[in-house]
Amino acid sequence: MKVGFIGLGNMGLPMAMNLLKAGHELTVYNRTAEKAKPLLKQGARAAASLAEASDADVVFTMLADDHAVESGTFGESGILENLPQGSVHISSSTISVALSQKLTAAHEEHHQRFISAPVFGRPAAAEARNLFVVVAGPNDAVERCAPLLDTIGQRTFRFGEQPWVANLVKLSGNFLIASVLESLSEAMALVGKAGIDQREYLDFLTSTLFAAPVYKTYGGLIVDRKFQPAGFAVPLGLKDVRLTLAAGEQLRVPLPLASLIRDRFLALLARGGESLDWSAIAQIAAEDSGQGSMSGRAA
Amino acid sequence: MKVGFIGLGNMGLPMAMNLLKAGHELTVYNRTAEKAKPLLKQGARAAASLAEASDADVVFTMLADDHAVESGTFGESGILENLPQGSVHISSSTISVALSQKLTAAHEEHHQRFISAPVFGRPAAAEARNLFVVVAGPNDAVERCAPLLDTIGQRTFRFGEQPWVANLVKLSGNFLIASVLESLSEAMALVGKAGIDQREYLDFLTSTLFAAPVYKTYGGLIVDRKFQPAGFAVPLGLKDVRLTLAAGEQLRVPLPLASLIRDRFLALLARGGESLDWSAIAQIAAEDSGQGSMSGRAA
Repeated sequence: MKVGFIGLGNMGLPMAMNLLKAGHELTVYNRTAEKAKPLLKQGARAAASLAEASDADVVFTMLADDHAVESGTFGESGILENLPQGSVHISSSTISVALSQKLTAAHEEHHQRFISAPVFGRPAAAEARNLFVVVAGPNDAVERCAPLLDTIGQRTFRFGEQPWVANLVKLSGNFLIASVLESLSEAMALVGKAGIDQREYLDFLTSTLFAAPVYKTYGGLIVDRKFQPAGFAVPLGLKDVRLTLAAGEQLRVPLPLASLIRDRFLALLARGGESLDWSAIAQIAAEDSGQGSMSGRAA
Repeated sequence: MKVGFIGLGNMGLPMAMNLLKAGHELTVYNRTAEKAKPLLKQGARAAASLAEASDADVVFTMLADDHAVESGTFGESGILENLPQGSVHISSSTISVALSQKLTAAHEEHHQRFISAPVFGRPAAAEARNLFVVVAGPNDAVERCAPLLDTIGQRTFRFGEQPWVANLVKLSGNFLIASVLESLSEAMALVGKAGIDQREYLDFLTSTLFAAPVYKTYGGLIVDRKFQPAGFAVPLGLKDVRLTLAAGEQLRVPLPLASLIRDRFLALLARGGESLDWSAIAQIAAEDSGQGSMSGRAA
């Protein structure tokens, strides 16, 4: 299959690499062309423009936010103008429900297919093909792209034919992870101030009721205060909580915990956390209880 | 070993039963004597008073709250007056850090030993000896009581020599569970209102990032709206969050998520949730988003 891949960041690069290794004919595009180098070495073709990358059977987008996806799709010589009729746009970016709905309508109008396939997992999981893929879109298109999705992740979960549903599942999933971060942050601040060994406490939690990857991974980062390099940076965490709240607003669902988390990320940014991993939210609870300081936090 | 057991509720009864089955000489006491019947049938001795149950090598207390433990210990003909010198009081109740410290001092003064051994798990886990036991207290006393603790649970975790530390671990653990309840409640309200199948959504969560018992157990109760009979009733959930906040106050640790959860439990009580399982907190998020109603909730 002739595959285009747009967006070669922390996540996009390893995803594209796995598609390439699986033998697909891959054309890649990134705003900063530099990022494509490791893929070109392995035989990928560099597209000089978005338009060129869009001339494919399937084009992936893995971009930072709504703005990037929107301008890449609707902008002059964007995907919409250049993707052949019947070809598929797979959006793996974490975008808003509203944009997903807008993309669905626009591609339909252009006789193209659109599916949403956001992924769960950090960059290391992307490299190891350990991502979980959540997909929604027209059945025939999803069926056709299944081998590609199986190439980037360890398992694909289907959520019906409306692409935006996959985006809501992704957003609410990230909200649930952020909730784990906030709850662990407060619990760690509490037991830490009491003089309890945080590592022992975490080992207890993760070998009993909380024996889940998310508690192990993020609990470890929090205990070790290892917030750099960021696997998923604070501004991205804030964005996803904002989009969860926006979905709640659209559907009329109050989300008080999501609101609280939004304010915690804002506090973290206000205190200089821009480049840190979102698990650094733990610093807010620690500092607010008189433990540690922002200065002690840098790597 | 001559063992006394005070408090034969949802949790105390199966714990006492397991001690009895393991061959310990058991004397049991409950304010409502009726509750002791299944144990007496199996050969336990009924104590006519707290004093009688306290005349043992080790006396367990598994009571509803601080008030019950305090009056049982300090009250007239209570444990403190009747436990022999050198004997051990094992407090398995979920009590405040402050009361744990007060009990430690009082027993020391009376030349008795005090250890805290709160447990994690619902009544079914207590029956199946699947509890996790968190213990803290003087090493020699903990060592002596280890076979008893191994009898009631699947695994015992030691947290040093200060009994109150075990209570803080238990409280913070229950706060973490309550956080899972609140986050799942909001996520379920969101995806439910979007028309997503909640069972499929839960299956996705618990087979990927949230593959932990607590998400499976409580997620299932929330999806099925199975809030009766209560394995752990709302007033107990409120109590534990209140005690977590009290520990935070004592240690000067702000806990905004715990504060939010406290208000959610209050709302649940205000809307008639007194007899429901604490996972019924999900009804608040559902109702506040215009889904379901308290009336549709009763079993």
